[in-house]
Formats: sequence, structure tokens, C-alpha cells
Amino acid sequence: MIWSVYLSGEIHSNWRQEVEQGAEALGLAVQFSAPVTDHAASDDCGVAILGAEDDKFWHDHKGAQMNAIRTRTLIEAADIVVVRFGEKYKQWNAAFDAGYAAARNKPIIVMHGDDHQHALKEVDAAALAVAQTPAQVVQILKYVIAGKLA
Amino acid sequence: MIWSVYLSGEIHSNWRQEVEQGAEALGLAVQFSAPVTDHAASDDCGVAILGAEDDKFWHDHKGAQMNAIRTRTLIEAADIVVVRFGEKYKQWNAAFDAGYAAARNKPIIVMHGDDHQHALKEVDAAALAVAQTPAQVVQILKYVIAGKLA
Amino acid sequence: MIWSVYLSGEIHSNWRQEVEQGAEALGLAVQFSAPVTDHAASDDCGVAILGAEDDKFWHDHKGAQMNAIRTRTLIEAADIVVVRFGEKYKQWNAAFDAGYAAARNKPIIVMHGDDHQHALKEVDAAALAVAQTPAQVVQILKYVIAGKLA
Amino acid sequence: MIWSVYLSGEIHSNWRQEVEQGAEALGLAVQFSAPVTDHAASDDCGVAILGAEDDKFWHDHKGAQMNAIRTRTLIEAADIVVVRFGEKYKQWNAAFDAGYAAARNKPIIVMHGDDHQHALKEVDAAALAVAQTPAQVVQILKYVIAGKLA
Amino acid sequence: MIWSVYLSGEIHSNWRQEVEQGAEALGLAVQFSAPVTDHAASDDCGVAILGAEDDKFWHDHKGAQMNAIRTRTLIEAADIVVVRFGEKYKQWNAAFDAGYAAARNKPIIVMHGDDHQHALKEVDAAALAVAQTPAQVVQILKYVIAGKLA
Amino acid sequence: MIWSVYLSGEIHSNWRQEVEQGAEALGLAVQFSAPVTDHAASDDCGVAILGAEDDKFWHDHKGAQMNAIRTRTLIEAADIVVVRFGEKYKQWNAAFDAGYAAARNKPIIVMHGDDHQHALKEVDAAALAVAQTPAQVVQILKYVIAGKLA
Amino acid sequence: MIWSVYLSGEIHSNWRQEVEQGAEALGLAVQFSAPVTDHAASDDCGVAILGAEDDKFWHDHKGAQMNAIRTRTLIEAADIVVVRFGEKYKQWNAAFDAGYAAARNKPIIVMHGDDHQHALKEVDAAALAVAQTPAQVVQILKYVIAGKLA
Amino acid sequence: MIWSVYLSGEIHSNWRQEVEQGAEALGLAVQFSAPVTDHAASDDCGVAILGAEDDKFWHDHKGAQMNAIRTRTLIEAADIVVVRFGEKYKQWNAAFDAGYAAARNKPIIVMHGDDHQHALKEVDAAALAVAQTPAQVVQILKYVIAGKLA
Repeated sequence: MIWSVYLSGEIHSNWRQEVEQGAEALGLAVQFSAPVTDHAASDDCGVAILGAEDDKFWHDHKGAQMNAIRTRTLIEAADIVVVRFGEKYKQWNAAFDAGYAAARNKPIIVMHGDDHQHALKEVDAAALAVAQTPAQVVQILKYVIAGKLA
Repeated sequence: MIWSVYLSGEIHSNWRQEVEQGAEALGLAVQFSAPVTDHAASDDCGVAILGAEDDKFWHDHKGAQMNAIRTRTLIEAADIVVVRFGEKYKQWNAAFDAGYAAARNKPIIVMHGDDHQHALKEVDAAALAVAQTPAQVVQILKYVIAGKLA
Repeated sequence: MIWSVYLSGEIHSNWRQEVEQGAEALGLAVQFSAPVTDHAASDDCGVAILGAEDDKFWHDHKGAQMNAIRTRTLIEAADIVVVRFGEKYKQWNAAFDAGYAAARNKPIIVMHGDDHQHALKEVDAAALAVAQTPAQVVQILKYVIAGKLA
Repeated sequence: MIWSVYLSGEIHSNWRQEVEQGAEALGLAVQFSAPVTDHAASDDCGVAILGAEDDKFWHDHKGAQMNAIRTRTLIEAADIVVVRFGEKYKQWNAAFDAGYAAARNKPIIVMHGDDHQHALKEVDAAALAVAQTPAQVVQILKYVIAGKLA
Repeated sequence: MIWSVYLSGEIHSNWRQEVEQGAEALGLAVQFSAPVTDHAASDDCGVAILGAEDDKFWHDHKGAQMNAIRTRTLIEAADIVVVRFGEKYKQWNAAFDAGYAAARNKPIIVMHGDDHQHALKEVDAAALAVAQTPAQVVQILKYVIAGKLA
Repeated sequence: MIWSVYLSGEIHSNWRQEVEQGAEALGLAVQFSAPVTDHAASDDCGVAILGAEDDKFWHDHKGAQMNAIRTRTLIEAADIVVVRFGEKYKQWNAAFDAGYAAARNKPIIVMHGDDHQHALKEVDAAALAVAQTPAQVVQILKYVIAGKLA
Repeated sequence: MIWSVYLSGEIHSNWRQEVEQGAEALGLAVQFSAPVTDHAASDDCGVAILGAEDDKFWHDHKGAQMNAIRTRTLIEAADIVVVRFGEKYKQWNAAFDAGYAAARNKPIIVMHGDDHQHALKEVDAAALAVAQTPAQVVQILKYVIAGKLA
Repeated sequence: MIWSVYLSGEIHSNWRQEVEQGAEALGLAVQFSAPVTDHAASDDCGVAILGAEDDKFWHDHKGAQMNAIRTRTLIEAADIVVVRFGEKYKQWNAAFDAGYAAARNKPIIVMHGDDHQHALKEVDAAALAVAQTPAQVVQILKYVIAGKLA
């Protein structure tokens, strides 16, 4: 069995590569998926393909719905959903993904720093693991997928 | 049919009362539910009932899981989920509830000000209505439940 | 048990009243629900409550999504879905409702005239009864709910 | 992951080939499925295989149910459902497929010209993208599947 | 809680009355439902309401589909499904109902005589109780609903 | 896509081979599954593996439950379920499988002779095709899977 | 909303009465359900109603399946499932109920003493609250249902 | 079709190897999965990866939740769940897995000795086969997967 792991959340650091490279180095039977992490493309995909909008709300709406085609499909297809909260921005889409995954019974790993601990307590309460670093996520995947602790 | 409407999100303004009073004034066939809106009780319920924790993470975890008994049950029982994003705090639990409701196919009404428009675009994209004021939510409920526009 | 019957489709004739009055005259244990049948309200509800749109597409989109809050909730709550196709208009929303109800395993009664027979064959193929008149629908409800044929 | 995309709707233009060739030219990881697009075969399959019917209704019923074996299975298996409304015919089966896909939580891309905009507003309201041309559908698939905008 | 019990199967003996009267005598919190047990009405309902058919297959098809509106709705609404196999006829509809109920996770009580034991082994294997008499069914309902053995 | 087709019902004629050979001759993208068709093995598997039973009921029960491990798994995995009713025996397990498949939304093809038409009307009413011969089933599979009528 | 709470597990102490009386004293909007707590009746119900068995396995099997008609129905109908592990016996049925409830997304409250802490860690990990006394369970219900902490 | 079989329960004997080797010797089309069977790793995985806990409860909680990422995913992916109860320990996690699998409609094979027969009657009542030895499990898999009794 090849495990499918969806990497949701922060797109402004290289945590996904760290997780992916760590898993690859260990030879884990896993394939990763993620939202589009090109911020500009993600914001503008709707109007770029389907035509410009005068109103910022609809500009964003078209893009967000187009991204949802990708994200919901990949979350549905995932065995595990990892949600990373970074230092910046509101990141409500990350929390939304966590709620979506929870309601679909996907095992959730949340990753964030101590500073967000209290604010993320409801999200953490829905997770099966709360990590702080990509290295920990890799170790969890190693344990869960390969059954090896060290 | 009595419609069940869950009012998720911000607990530091009186928007729930405005919605409830507006609906009552119109005689709508609706019953409202909500998370516990007493901030201190919501934070401390876990340790108050089940015993203190030295570690803040587990203090919060116990409380957040206890609150989840209430919130998930009421979201499951709801016909419509209204999610309000206020001015302050991270409000990740509100976005989590929106994601949860979306994955359970609950019609979602999001309420927030213009300043959050871009940051909430993914949440808005999962909603069937995006309102700014409690009065608009009351009007939507009137239209949806009673079938009357004015 | 009170049966819930959703009456989808044509809003420009009085077929709903005929079905409802026929059922009432027979004292059937049934409650009916329906989309908003005020055509102007149905078209304009979105902008009337949430603000005007310059673009006709978004004007319609806001209204259609607001109507969906009502229609999807009532279809979910229904035991039986009746879908009426009239003489005029494209009525794609009626066919959409039929597909939605089929995928949710709701028993479907379709009502239409002979002239639409070929064009509606896929919709009819998903139905458990294909009627032509409100009186037939009333007779079906009498048989199904009260267990009496005549 | 190979994405499965179901192409529903109009069978009297070559829009499916355009989408398929466009996707192939881009090397997208996608496989397409569709209803039987041979109009005569689609109409007559039931009686051709299972025996003639005197009554046009049952002639059509047998064919429509046989086609449903194919279409419902492929919609269930699809990650994305594209629904094309053309210029001619009632196309209620296309709207039915859209409703079916919506109730099964399949991301929907609707494709139609401006002239059908108002009549399709309920179908569009259930879609995550509303396109006008096969080229736009190809671009959406490229963005959604390969994560590239241009 | 009022328990809903659907009584499927044989319509040529008075076993339903025996079960219902037995439950009533015990004051159990139960409401019963059943298919239409008027054999002629059940056979002819389709053509009586929707018009005659020359072909016996379609005559039966129309009736069977109309009956399915009732039976599937009531099985879905049931907490327990009792399926009675009598002495006569093929009774494939009874076995069909048992399979349907099994796939919907409804607790099943099968009732039949020893002579059908081997032929019904697959149906019995899906049941939580296999009874022979209406009195036993009443005792099971008393135990299950009221929690009293004698 | 390789279609999975489950062949339920009669085990005393060679209809499965006819269907399988017909499909193979046409090169259809299909894999077939079936219950264990060795009658003696099917009856005795439970006691042969898990120990003898004095009581015929439990002898049969053990076997029927062991067969259910296979049959329910394969029905769940099937895209299409074909149910064949032969000339002999009660065949309640075939009708049970049809009910099970119907409740799991599997497209059903029923195959039987004219003599069983009336007794099978409820099963036929849940099917998308009613055939009489293996050759017809092959033609249906060809049409449904390959999209070719002749 | 009247909350439904299922009280699973230990039947040899009066913890259910304590919970029920505590909730009643507080006037909570709750109705409780439970397995049959008469140990002898629970063990013998199957043979008492459906006939004696020579083999202890089938004696127990008949009883356990009859009890399952009650317990699975009530767990399905519950908003919250409380599972109590006492001092004695294996109590595998309690852990089974917890697993069943978890897979059905029911919020779980586990109640047990410190001595079982390690052995119950997997069950606790699926719970939203782990209590030690009936008084704590009453407090949780008060908080969750009435929204009051003290 | 390659069957997926999850081997739950006892980790202190070599029953899994016996089942796996037996299946391999027979060339069955099956792949096995299991929880992590290294007892120490299973107990300590949470704190080893995510940091130590002073409180034994949270030490265990972190580990149990991390194990749940693996076990629930593999149970969901399984066609058949085998649950082994050994001689020692409380083994509540085994019973929990059985309940979880039952609620997810997974065919269950329970394996245990006679001494646990009465205490496991509710678990056995949810199983489709109750075996005593690994050799019997292999025979069941051979029969169910390959359709051969001897």
C-alpha cells in the first residue's frame, strides 16, 4: 500500500520539501499532494482562465472555487492530512481544511509553533498528532507507515 | 418543519442575540444553537470538571475536546450553519467549523466585514451566502424559511 | 409517520395547490414543501438582501445560491420528491433537482405531458412513477401513504 | 494520481475531442470518460439488445436505463464532472447529471454560452467553475491537476 | 423513543395483526409499518393510477415501482425490519427486502418455519434473530424495546 | 478503467462461463467475480473448517456466514451486479443479493425466463436491465463498457 | 433539542442511576438509554425466547445477537455515548461499543478508574472526555447540554 | 483482485506469521496489514517523537493517538478484519477494533480459545466466523479468496 498524504497550509516556507525529502530519504511508501503553492497563481487562477472581474470579491471567489476543485479532491483521496500553520497571515484556509478533513474522518497531523498553541486548541483537539517541525512529521510518517520508531 | 440553525464563531459581540431577536420578531420557525459563549467557561471547562493540568497544552486540549462534544453534535443536527468572523483573534475554530460543515454538506452562511474578504476567500467559496450584518442573516433566514423576501 | 413531500419544478401553474388540496381533502398524513415560487423574489433574493451586482451572472449566482439553502435542505428532508416539468422555459433546475434527489436515494415522481416524453427519458428512468396530472400524483400519494387504491 | 474526468452533456459537437486533445497535448495525468455519444445507439440500445417495444415510452425507458448503467458508474468513479450545455435540445439529462454529481460531492465544471446564463443559474451555482470554451476547460484541468497556470 | 418496526413479507396470513396486537397488549413503545397487504391493489396500483399496459411486464413494473415508493421509504425509516416467509409463493420480494435492510444496517428478525430453513440460510445469516411464530417476535420486541424478558 | 462485474445467483447451469467467454471474445475491459459455485463446498465450508455442528441450523449458519465474507466483499467491490434466477430452487439468496446491491446503489442486471416474470417484479423494478440470456448480458456489457451497440 | 445519551458498559454497580438522577436534579434536556442491565436476562434472552441450545456457544450467540438489536439501535440513535469500565470482568462488550461508536462519529465519554488507565489507552484516545466518577459525567452533560460550568 | 486483510489484536505470539506464511504457501491473492507489533515502540512512539510527558495518562494518550493514525487507516483499507484475543492482558484495543470494523461493515473473523468464549460473545456475535487457530484462519482465507475448500 502506497500511503497518500496531503500537505495543507502554509505556502511561504519550504516545509513541504523538508517533509518530502525526509520521507524519500527513508524510502517510505508514500506519495504527497498539496494545494498549488504558487501564491500569485493561486490568487489569480480564476480570472486568468475564466475572465477578469471588476469586483475583488468575485475575483477571489473565482480563484478560490477553482482551487477547491484541486484541494477537495486531494483531501478526499488522502489517507493522512497534515496541516501546517506558519507565522504569518490569517491562514483560515488551513483551519478550514482541518475541519473538512476531520468531518471526513481523515487522520490529521497538525504542525505549528508554541505561539499558536492556545489559538489552535480546537484544531489540535481534532488531530491525532501535534508536531512542531517537519522532522517530527517525517518521523511520524516513518512510524505510521513503516512501523519503525528509530 | 422547525429549522435548526447553528451560530458559529465570534463570541465577543452580541451578534447572536441580534439574529435571534430578529428571527423571533418575524416569528420564523427556527431554533438556534451555539457553542458555549462564556469565554472563561469555554477555556476552563476541561480542567474544572476533570482535574487540573500543569501543562497549558493539555489544559487547553481537555477543554477543546469537551467543547467538541457540544459543537460537533449541534453542527450535525443543524440545517444551516452560520459562521461569524469578528475583528479580533485568530478565530481558527470558526474556520474549522466552516470546513467541518462544508464536508457534512451543511448550507453555510458566512458573516464578516470587508477587511477580511481576501483572507476568507476559501471559506466564502464554500458558502451559499456571504453577509456582513446580523440583519442580513435574519433576512436570509426569513427568505429561506418563510419564503418571503420583504 | 407524517410523510414529507417536496414539490420541485414548474412555478407558473397552480399544480402545487391542486396536489396539496387533493391530499388535504383525503386527509393524508403528509406535509408539503417547495422552492420559493414567487418568480421575481426567487430571481432577485440574492441582490435584494446582500447588495446589487453590476454583472448579471453574479446577480443570478447570488440568488441561485441563496435559493439552494432552501431547496437542498428541503430535498434532504423529504421522503418523496415530485418533479413537475411544464410547457415553458428550459427548467434545468427541475432536472438538476431530479438528479440531486436520485443521488440521495429519494423516491422520485416525475410529472409532465406527452410532448416532453422523449426529452425526459433519462429523468423518467430515475423515477419510480411518471404521472401526467396533479390528480394522479394525489392518487399515488394516497396509495403510498394510506395504502388505499380507491 | 491519474485524475478521472467525466464529460457529460452535449453530444452534437466535438467539444470532447477538443478537451481530450488539449489535455493530451499538455501531457496531463488524466483519463476521460463519457456517455455513449452515438445518438442512435444511445436511443435504441435498450430495444436492440432486450427486444422491441410498441410503446415509445418503454422503448425510451429501456434505453435510458441501460445508459444509466454506464453513466452512473462513470460519474461515481470520476474525480471531476464537466457538464456541457450546447445550443440545441432540452438537455435535461445534462442537468440531471449535474444534480447527481452535486449530491455526490463531485467538483463540477459547467460549460455553456452566454445565452444560457440565466436559465442555468441553479446549475452554475452548484459548480466550482463556469467555462465557455473547451480551451478553458483544458486550462482548468492543467491548473487543477498539474498546478501550473500558464 | 418510539421504535419503528417494518413488517415485510407474507401477506396471506394474519401474522401482522398477531404481532401488532401482541405488542399493543404489552403497551410497547412501537409503531408498525408494512407494505400494502391488499394483494390485488398491490398488483394493479400502477396501471390503475397511471394507465393500462398491454404488456404484462410493464403492468407489473409500474405496480412494483409504485410499491417501492412506499416500501423503501418505510424500510429506511425503520429501526427494526421483520421479514416473514410463509408457505406459498416465491416470496422473492421478502428476500429482496432482507438484503436491502441488511445493506442499510437495519437489525433484521426473520420469521419462517423449519421447512424453509436450508433455503433461507443466507437470509438467516444476515439476521440478528430467527423466529418461527408471531408470539416469539412479540417477545423479542418486548425484550429489545422494554428490556423485560418475562 | 477495468469494470468489475459480480455474477450472483444460479449455480447449476453454465451461464457464468457463457458471459465470461462472451466478454473475453469481445476483449471487454472487465473482470468477473462470483460466489463459490461448488454447491457442496458452499454448503459445508463452515463446518469443514470450523468444526461440525449437530444442529442443521447451525451447520448452515456457519457456512452461510462464511460465504458472506466473500459475497459481500465482492458485491461492494463491483461496478455492476448481475443476478440470475434459474428454473429450480427457492433462490432466496439471489433475491437477497439483489436487495443488498440495490441498497448499495449498484447498477443491477437481472436475468430470468418469462415464467418468473410476475414473481420477480419487485426485483426487476430495482434493475436497470432485465435480460433473458447470457448473450444479452454480454451485449449489455459490450454496450455499457465499450460503448458499442453492434 | 432533547439530547440522547447511551450509557454503555458495566452493569454491576449503580452508576447509571447516579448519572440519571444527577441529570434529573439539574433538569437537563436529556434522555438516557442503556443495554438490558439484568445480567441473567441478558445472558439467556436468546434461548428463553427462541429455544434452548445444547452448545454454550450458540446459547450465548443467540443472546448476544438479540441484545445487539437493542444496543446497536440505541447507539445509532444516541448523540453521546458514555462507556463505563468497572473493576471486574473482561468487559469486551464495552470496548466493542466504544469502537462502534467511534466509527459512527459519536462523541464518546469514557469512565474508569486509574488502575485501568494504561490498558484503556486506545479507548481513551478515541474519547472526547475521560472521567472517573458519575458526578463528573453529570457535570460534563450539564456543561455540554446546558452550557453552564457551575 | 488482491484482498486486504488486517490482523488486529494480540501481539505476544507469532499468530500473524503463521497466518501470513500459510497464505503465502497457498499463493493466495492477499496482502496483510497490522498494527505496530513492537510493544515498546507502540507504547512510547508518541513521546519518543513529540516529546516527553510527566503524566502517564498523556504519555499513553500521545502514543495511542499516533498508533490510531496507522490502525484506523489500515482498517478502513481492509476487506477483512481478523481479531485475535490471546491469553493475557485486557486486550480492550482488540475489542475496540472489532467494534470499529463492525460499524464500518467490514467482515470480521474472530480468533480466540474456548476459555474466552462467554466473555467474547458480543464480539463473536458481530463476526462472520469464529476460529481458534491460525490454520483455520488460513483455510477461511483460502475458501473466501480462492473459492477452494480443500
